[in-house]
Amino acid sequence: MKLKPMDDRLLIKLTEEKEQTKGGIIIPDSAKEKPQKGEVIAVGTDEDLQQYIKAGDHVLFSKYAGQEVRIDDEEYLILTRGDILAIVEN
Amino acid sequence: MKLKPMDDRLLIKLTEEKEQTKGGIIIPDSAKEKPQKGEVIAVGTDEDLQQYIKAGDHVLFSKYAGQEVRIDDEEYLILTRGDILAIVEN
Amino acid sequence: MKLKPMDDRLLIKLTEEKEQTKGGIIIPDSAKEKPQKGEVIAVGTDEDLQQYIKAGDHVLFSKYAGQEVRIDDEEYLILTRGDILAIVEN
Amino acid sequence: MKLKPMDDRLLIKLTEEKEQTKGGIIIPDSAKEKPQKGEVIAVGTDEDLQQYIKAGDHVLFSKYAGQEVRIDDEEYLILTRGDILAIVEN
Amino acid sequence: MKLKPMDDRLLIKLTEEKEQTKGGIIIPDSAKEKPQKGEVIAVGTDEDLQQYIKAGDHVLFSKYAGQEVRIDDEEYLILTRGDILAIVEN
Amino acid sequence: MKLKPMDDRLLIKLTEEKEQTKGGIIIPDSAKEKPQKGEVIAVGTDEDLQQYIKAGDHVLFSKYAGQEVRIDDEEYLILTRGDILAIVEN
Amino acid sequence: MKLKPMDDRLLIKLTEEKEQTKGGIIIPDSAKEKPQKGEVIAVGTDEDLQQYIKAGDHVLFSKYAGQEVRIDDEEYLILTRGDILAIVEN
Repeated sequence: MKLKPMDDRLLIKLTEEKEQTKGGIIIPDSAKEKPQKGEVIAVGTDEDLQQYIKAGDHVLFSKYAGQEVRIDDEEYLILTRGDILAIVEN
Repeated sequence: MKLKPMDDRLLIKLTEEKEQTKGGIIIPDSAKEKPQKGEVIAVGTDEDLQQYIKAGDHVLFSKYAGQEVRIDDEEYLILTRGDILAIVEN
Repeated sequence: MKLKPMDDRLLIKLTEEKEQTKGGIIIPDSAKEKPQKGEVIAVGTDEDLQQYIKAGDHVLFSKYAGQEVRIDDEEYLILTRGDILAIVEN
Repeated sequence: MKLKPMDDRLLIKLTEEKEQTKGGIIIPDSAKEKPQKGEVIAVGTDEDLQQYIKAGDHVLFSKYAGQEVRIDDEEYLILTRGDILAIVEN
Repeated sequence: MKLKPMDDRLLIKLTEEKEQTKGGIIIPDSAKEKPQKGEVIAVGTDEDLQQYIKAGDHVLFSKYAGQEVRIDDEEYLILTRGDILAIVEN
Repeated sequence: MKLKPMDDRLLIKLTEEKEQTKGGIIIPDSAKEKPQKGEVIAVGTDEDLQQYIKAGDHVLFSKYAGQEVRIDDEEYLILTRGDILAIVEN
Repeated sequence: MKLKPMDDRLLIKLTEEKEQTKGGIIIPDSAKEKPQKGEVIAVGTDEDLQQYIKAGDHVLFSKYAGQEVRIDDEEYLILTRGDILAIVEN
């Protein structure tokens, strides 16, 4: 199953972020929830959005944003443009 | 009875999704509700919407979205464009 | 008394829908309220709306939508465009 | 005192509607409030509105809508365009 | 001190309205608050508003609307365009 | 430190208003809060706003509006255009 | 990891502000929270925003605004244009 997100939505695959440590010591996160990282699998039909984000981009987005979907036994998220905080550049 | 949805609404027929199993074991869904799949039966009068979705398309939409209608003893849903998360491509 | 609905409003006459049965057995409706059917008696002054709906059309609309009016001892409803879910085509 | 309503407002004089009876029997209204009828005394400064409604028109409007004003010991209502449900045509 | 109201605001001086009587009998107001009358002292910088209202006009506005200001020991009100119900014409 | 307010914001310095008295008797304010006066120190980047208000203007604004900032041990307020009720003219 | 903020967002690095003192005495802040200062690390994809703010600018923004992100063990904030109160000029 392949999905084409509608309008300004994006299909995202969460990229597991390893617990950040410094010399083996786990640094506990502050109470404030950190954003999550994911890879863009498909960009919505909105042409303006397609100018800024492409499949393969890695993005930062608000934790708990979006709707989970399961495709071929794998978990994805459908976000909207407004959930995307930033694009990760290398 | 045949329906022409008004404006940016869509008439949808739910496509039963079999309980997903892996080697016969039922995988319980997480607490978070998954979206539902359906087939587009008729697209609204909105011309912009008609560019993106056509009758026969399969779509993913938020569970509990829309209004149920019964036509000739069969159940359908009337959704609005904003309820459509993604179009399923093969 | 004849009414010209204002702007994107419509004057609707409810068309009684007989309790649907199958071989004499009444099928109880689900808890979720079904939409109602009605005939369009007059379309509002809005020219865009007039392109899509005409007097004599039959429409589906959300139950409990609109405001009841009594004209010559008969009950009608005044709906707005957003209450119309679909136009019934034959 | 003569009033020119501002923008899309209208000055309305309630036209008393006699309790509707059928052969002398008073038919009690349903719990749902019926709209009220009135005569348009003055139309606001909004030119678009002036295309659709003129002084002397009779209109139907939501009960309890608008603000009461007293001019020379008579009661009037100031409504906005959105309160007008329909224009009564003869 | 002279004030130029900002944007679509207006500076208003309340014109005391004598308690309306009929042959010496005070007619108690209904529970519903009547609008108040005032004289426009200055019109805001908004050019569209200036087409419709000028300093010296008398206007009707919703009771309790606006913000009180005191200039040289006199009380005024600063209203916005939306508070003005009607212009009083003679 | 010098600040350039963003968009339609304004940097304001409160101008102390002496308690108004009449022949030495302090007139207590009504319960309704009066607006405050201040001098515009800097106008935001919004070009439309710059047409109407300039640094050095004195303005009236809603009490409690805006955000306090301290620059070089002095207190200022950052307001938005909508907080400005009127410009004081001499 | 380098971030390109999406749309009208900005990546900000808090610039520690030393407790302001006057002759060694700490002046307690009023109950009302003061804005915070930070340096702009990256400006969003929005071209209009890029006209007004550039990387390297120092800005004032509402305390508690934005979302924390951690990049290479350092804390940053992602704000939106509306959180920026003023640009600090030297």
